[in-house]
Amino acid sequence: MPRAQVYADILRRLLRSGAKQRAEKVLGKLRSADAADVLDRVAPAERRPMLDLLFAAGRAGSVMKELPEERLGEVLALVDDERLTGLVAKLATDDAAWFVERLPEERRERLLGALDPRARGDIERILRYPAGTAGSVMNTRVFALPASATAQEAIDRLRARDAEEADSIYYLYVVDTDGRLGGVVAVRRLVAARPDRPVGELAMADPLAVLASSTAEEAARLVARYNLLAVPVVDEDRRLLGIITVDDIIDVIQEQATQALYGLAGLSEDDRIFSPILTSFRKRLPWMVLNLFTAFLAAWVVGLFSASIAQVVALATFMPIVAGMGGNCGMQALTVVTRGVALGEMELISGLRTIAKELAVSLGIGACTGLVTAAVASLWTGQPMIGLVLFLAMVINLSIAGFSGAAIPLFLRAIKRDPALGGTVMLTTFTDCIGYGAFLGIATLLLRYLT
Amino acid sequence: MPRAQVYADILRRLLRSGAKQRAEKVLGKLRSADAADVLDRVAPAERRPMLDLLFAAGRAGSVMKELPEERLGEVLALVDDERLTGLVAKLATDDAAWFVERLPEERRERLLGALDPRARGDIERILRYPAGTAGSVMNTRVFALPASATAQEAIDRLRARDAEEADSIYYLYVVDTDGRLGGVVAVRRLVAARPDRPVGELAMADPLAVLASSTAEEAARLVARYNLLAVPVVDEDRRLLGIITVDDIIDVIQEQATQALYGLAGLSEDDRIFSPILTSFRKRLPWMVLNLFTAFLAAWVVGLFSASIAQVVALATFMPIVAGMGGNCGMQALTVVTRGVALGEMELISGLRTIAKELAVSLGIGACTGLVTAAVASLWTGQPMIGLVLFLAMVINLSIAGFSGAAIPLFLRAIKRDPALGGTVMLTTFTDCIGYGAFLGIATLLLRYLT
Repeated sequence: MPRAQVYADILRRLLRSGAKQRAEKVLGKLRSADAADVLDRVAPAERRPMLDLLFAAGRAGSVMKELPEERLGEVLALVDDERLTGLVAKLATDDAAWFVERLPEERRERLLGALDPRARGDIERILRYPAGTAGSVMNTRVFALPASATAQEAIDRLRARDAEEADSIYYLYVVDTDGRLGGVVAVRRLVAARPDRPVGELAMADPLAVLASSTAEEAARLVARYNLLAVPVVDEDRRLLGIITVDDIIDVIQEQATQALYGLAGLSEDDRIFSPILTSFRKRLPWMVLNLFTAFLAAWVVGLFSASIAQVVALATFMPIVAGMGGNCGMQALTVVTRGVALGEMELISGLRTIAKELAVSLGIGACTGLVTAAVASLWTGQPMIGLVLFLAMVINLSIAGFSGAAIPLFLRAIKRDPALGGTVMLTTFTDCIGYGAFLGIATLLLRYLT
Repeated sequence: MPRAQVYADILRRLLRSGAKQRAEKVLGKLRSADAADVLDRVAPAERRPMLDLLFAAGRAGSVMKELPEERLGEVLALVDDERLTGLVAKLATDDAAWFVERLPEERRERLLGALDPRARGDIERILRYPAGTAGSVMNTRVFALPASATAQEAIDRLRARDAEEADSIYYLYVVDTDGRLGGVVAVRRLVAARPDRPVGELAMADPLAVLASSTAEEAARLVARYNLLAVPVVDEDRRLLGIITVDDIIDVIQEQATQALYGLAGLSEDDRIFSPILTSFRKRLPWMVLNLFTAFLAAWVVGLFSASIAQVVALATFMPIVAGMGGNCGMQALTVVTRGVALGEMELISGLRTIAKELAVSLGIGACTGLVTAAVASLWTGQPMIGLVLFLAMVINLSIAGFSGAAIPLFLRAIKRDPALGGTVMLTTFTDCIGYGAFLGIATLLLRYLT
């Protein structure tokens, strides 16, 4: 049995029998992510007593922020306004915005009204950034001081912060009087520095930063490439707006990876193992209908040549090979190029070279597998001409597949669309139609040698 | 033009004209990852002067460790033994092992012999762990003290470390006299603590840790789930062996994501945008030949029914729809389940339920798209019976596709294979053979109503 289920059962029994203290102890031993799993699994009626315990232990916020998105709204509905306001006021702004976003319109307004104006402003600012931007996931509580502050002052400031908040402070950012980012000092360096040294002297100038309007993936790329623990978020004038810490970056990277995989199969991001059958069904159907449409297109191409098939039935036997191999070959090119785009590698190589390379590789593969196919088919049917037709069709189809596999994601990127989405269906439309078309077309041209 | 290329050109020109100081300045402004890109791009003859500059600036190690794996060996060959020994002795053990692994056998022995016995022992220990284990990527230089040490002592120790090394110390681990892991203190908490407090009192007991023999993915899962900056690596007796820091965890996550994507398309991990044409060709060919084999299997199934196709040529037109839609439907199930396995979600749900869910979803999708297909085909051909055959075949094939899409990765996981590898080719073999077989088989049974 899954571990979260075991704990959920224990807690349920303890709470039912009124053994609150023992329940408190069990819950106290669970880390936040584990407690969130338990909260996710218990029956709705049992969530309220569990939440009471979590609030009593001051852990409600850190546990609730680990809940799955779908569940958070449900749980927030169980928390009264007063508690929720207190909770949101204490959370990091990115988490606070995450909670507020999941409230019904009316309650959201009420809650924001109850917050102090600065906290409210910070949360509203984050909510204004579109999903997927760096601004939408930043924490606006940053540790920033002017260059003239001393190392000791900085450490004193740090000690004054409450422990949980301070735990996620890795860098001190040095800002000018307009709040513009000028430098960065690792907190660890502060500790080692002479107490009276101004932080401006300790700081590394010209730190890396992302624009609030750029994508969260861009922030992730900087953190991954330069091994940072946090990346500052700035506006167009380089004023420091917030930071994104590495734990949130890991979430961005995981989501991006899921999206990349899901994009190839036409899945939407929230279609997971746990999703109810109806949800998965509804989310997948449109993609399948789109594919059905392209399948009919391919069928139409085949239908154009039904006279040839009627004369040489062996064509029907071999035509799936050409289309299928084209699809596989194109998928390899598509995957390599899409991944390269996601990892930011396309900044190091030109698109034309990439396309030329994939074309060359698939031409080679088309020639090799085409030869094998031709040999097998010739022996199988005793008709070398069928082999020749297969060879030609495969060279053509696989070359076009490699070309398209590279060109499609680069094209999608050029028109500012996600290269990971929709590429597969475009690709298989090409490889199917061209695969069937080339094979049956060449066969039709050479028909008198085949019958 | 890519930025690294621009810098490479500038540096090349400066070095050729002997403007060493200006080259030094340009190089000094580049971050390690960027300098590595430049080093990767310049001609082999220009690497040596660039390396000299990097050694002079004490940055050779941090730049070289950012080089792509294939290039590192080449660059190491340019560094003389003495320099290399000094470099390896200063690197974190995981990086040192990474370098040593890339040396030719004979030089490796020579280098290890020149290191002090402890460093040598550490590196050899890491090299003994198989690739992909937590032990193989850990850094053995950990910051560990007994419980009785005071906060001030800990801070003094930290200050005594050299700056670059200290920068990656996030936690102090508390160990007993046998080196067994007993607790953990965030460095940030040390700073805020009373100087005379024993670290044992500050520590959180029972910290999360991974076994050296478990997978690096397991370490990544802990870091991602519990928002850690580093995870300790222990042996079976919970003795502290090393740590894996979050920057290395990000690399593990990125590699895992690449592998997951690549596994679906049968690509090997080192087949990237930059790989030479011949490399990509050679790495992809086996997968394509495997696919060709399964394509012939599907062709053989079609061939079994050539008599039916000869009588009703429309069958050839529609058969790709059944096979293709089965493939698409199965890929969706396969992707969702494979991703769930990778994210550790299968610990929260039973395999049987997952398979049942995917079967139900694909049955529903099969029925819907089957109906549409039947309607279109009936109108197109004027033969409702063809529509009926299509409907039945699609319900059967898509159901089996959904079932297999869920069962294949779970089966691969049960036999301790990577669920992300080989699943696609198994799946499409099923969906092709069953797709063609079901459609043409049912058509053959009902043949007299079709002609």
